[in-house]
Amino acid sequence: MKYGRTYNFSAGPAMMPEEVLEEIAAEMMNYRGSGMCVMEMSHRSKVFMDIAAEAEADLRKLMGIPDNYKVLFVQGGGTVQFAMVAMNLLKGGVACYVETGAWSKKAIAEAKKYGEVKIVASSKDKNFTYIPDCSDLDIPENADYVYICENETINGTTFFELPNTKGKILVSDQSSMFLSRPCDVSKYGLIWAGVQKNVGPAGMAVVIVREDLIREDLAEYVPTYMSYKTHADNDSMYNTPNCWAIYCCGKVFKYLQKTGGLEAMHQRNVEKAAILYDFLDQSKFFSAPVEKASRSLMNVPFVSPSKEQDAEVVAATKAAGFDNLKGHKSVGGLRASIYNAMPKEGVEALVEFLKKYEAEHA
Amino acid sequence: MKYGRTYNFSAGPAMMPEEVLEEIAAEMMNYRGSGMCVMEMSHRSKVFMDIAAEAEADLRKLMGIPDNYKVLFVQGGGTVQFAMVAMNLLKGGVACYVETGAWSKKAIAEAKKYGEVKIVASSKDKNFTYIPDCSDLDIPENADYVYICENETINGTTFFELPNTKGKILVSDQSSMFLSRPCDVSKYGLIWAGVQKNVGPAGMAVVIVREDLIREDLAEYVPTYMSYKTHADNDSMYNTPNCWAIYCCGKVFKYLQKTGGLEAMHQRNVEKAAILYDFLDQSKFFSAPVEKASRSLMNVPFVSPSKEQDAEVVAATKAAGFDNLKGHKSVGGLRASIYNAMPKEGVEALVEFLKKYEAEHA
Repeated sequence: MKYGRTYNFSAGPAMMPEEVLEEIAAEMMNYRGSGMCVMEMSHRSKVFMDIAAEAEADLRKLMGIPDNYKVLFVQGGGTVQFAMVAMNLLKGGVACYVETGAWSKKAIAEAKKYGEVKIVASSKDKNFTYIPDCSDLDIPENADYVYICENETINGTTFFELPNTKGKILVSDQSSMFLSRPCDVSKYGLIWAGVQKNVGPAGMAVVIVREDLIREDLAEYVPTYMSYKTHADNDSMYNTPNCWAIYCCGKVFKYLQKTGGLEAMHQRNVEKAAILYDFLDQSKFFSAPVEKASRSLMNVPFVSPSKEQDAEVVAATKAAGFDNLKGHKSVGGLRASIYNAMPKEGVEALVEFLKKYEAEHA
Repeated sequence: MKYGRTYNFSAGPAMMPEEVLEEIAAEMMNYRGSGMCVMEMSHRSKVFMDIAAEAEADLRKLMGIPDNYKVLFVQGGGTVQFAMVAMNLLKGGVACYVETGAWSKKAIAEAKKYGEVKIVASSKDKNFTYIPDCSDLDIPENADYVYICENETINGTTFFELPNTKGKILVSDQSSMFLSRPCDVSKYGLIWAGVQKNVGPAGMAVVIVREDLIREDLAEYVPTYMSYKTHADNDSMYNTPNCWAIYCCGKVFKYLQKTGGLEAMHQRNVEKAAILYDFLDQSKFFSAPVEKASRSLMNVPFVSPSKEQDAEVVAATKAAGFDNLKGHKSVGGLRASIYNAMPKEGVEALVEFLKKYEAEHA
């Protein structure tokens, strides 16, 4: 790759499009004649307000976000959203969660602080290697929402079909699949995504929330920052936002538009993932533990015949210039995160390497 | 200035040292042979962990932070800290606040959600144009802490002497003066500072907290993110931190060391502020409303004879290439924020301009 860059398979923060980074570097000392770097701009200045407004408008276009949804840029990532979702959407009823791995478990644990939680489906029985059938969940009448982690970064599963929520509000953590494929926002009450996986730098979540769900009557103990209303009423500028992340994400939104939008990106992602899964499925040495119908196009966990050999493969990939292929400590093995910005050539090169490795070590 | 950069008097986000920005631009496509941009690095990777550890070590050296204090990098800025301070430090007693302007008022309002608050001193009577005498405050026996906003960004006041807390814990918001002068950390229980004023990009606060104040027994409703313990126990990596801000702030810490540390920076700040205040005090057209003994070296509010003329001066400065001199909407007038990264030449150029303006319009 140009500049001696490596193929970086990190689960997040992760690769960004090279041309976006080039633009950012070129604008560092003086953003478009403003006389300053974006990091130096008052968030109340016209030049920055324009950057933020354009980022939001581009995201709305890209996803086709309906007018009755607010787009919020909030600091703090998943740990903050786990609490915010429950603090804002639990109204004395039951919060329903589909348990598909570590990230839904964390969301569940946090929600329990603020009300009653029901796990309406789980894939715990098979180590979270599949997405449970959610076509006929037992949703209580007083359910306030149904929550999913739409793509499980650690376990490598994804929802190809949304749960039947029986008319209740659907809340989705899209962090590790955000903007990887078209999304019908109108099917959700709230979508949130930490941007550090498939979009930009760490330090911000995008929240897309239906306006009628933004409440005023929150419990007294809810911090001002943790109320969606605080952010919604002030166009995400109640406080100083993560201006740099807004700027970088805005550039990625433009890049996605330019390269054909979410449908084109999805096609490329399908193709990239197939290269890797096809190899793993025919291999006698490597294998992919996730059930075929639930396989993530973004995070591909795989294993060799033993833990010892897993560690050897990781070391060999690193030595060959492939970065961050070690699986999450909770599941072991290897994991290739192949987000939007991972070039097809990166996946091909990895597969070539693994083939050769297998030939030499099997 | 180089690159056609302007003198930017923004109250925050604000100017950063030019050579720091140059380094960041140079490292954008491939950070020191890592093959990636810092924005693309896993926060669990060795290369990034080293960046974060070095930033913390440099800050500790710069401020002389004692070993029994933790340094935390937390997202969310002041709005989050207002709540975190009260949620973590109020233990059923009284939270004492010195009211010196908008930022302490916000901190007070947030703290009231979590317990009893007492305003132990205020400068409200004179529109927050001075720091009240805090040598003999009426601190209740059951006070959990005494809170100050050590430099008031909007009103332009600063504490040159710390309050006598009668042995109670001192908590300080140092956002708009962080690293502008030497600081004896051992006098405080907790210092926090949003970094977007005097250090780096928006999206992070530095929290320096004495270890024995980090509690486990928080109220059930405290979100995991809002517990200092969450961050302290995980070296600020419980969740993905604002890696970019850590990286940029780390560079500024190194820059401060290289240019002589906080004592040298303080001398430069004293000199810079004197240039502006001396001009304002002899001017027949402009004046500085803050009492001399309380004047901030960082934020300098001033006014012309009328609101109409204030607006004209702001427009004229903007046309002459000086940015963001409009006073905060709550106080009006003009405000020059002259943080660490504002060169002396910038202040001199502004004074030259104002002199000329006065000669032409007085």
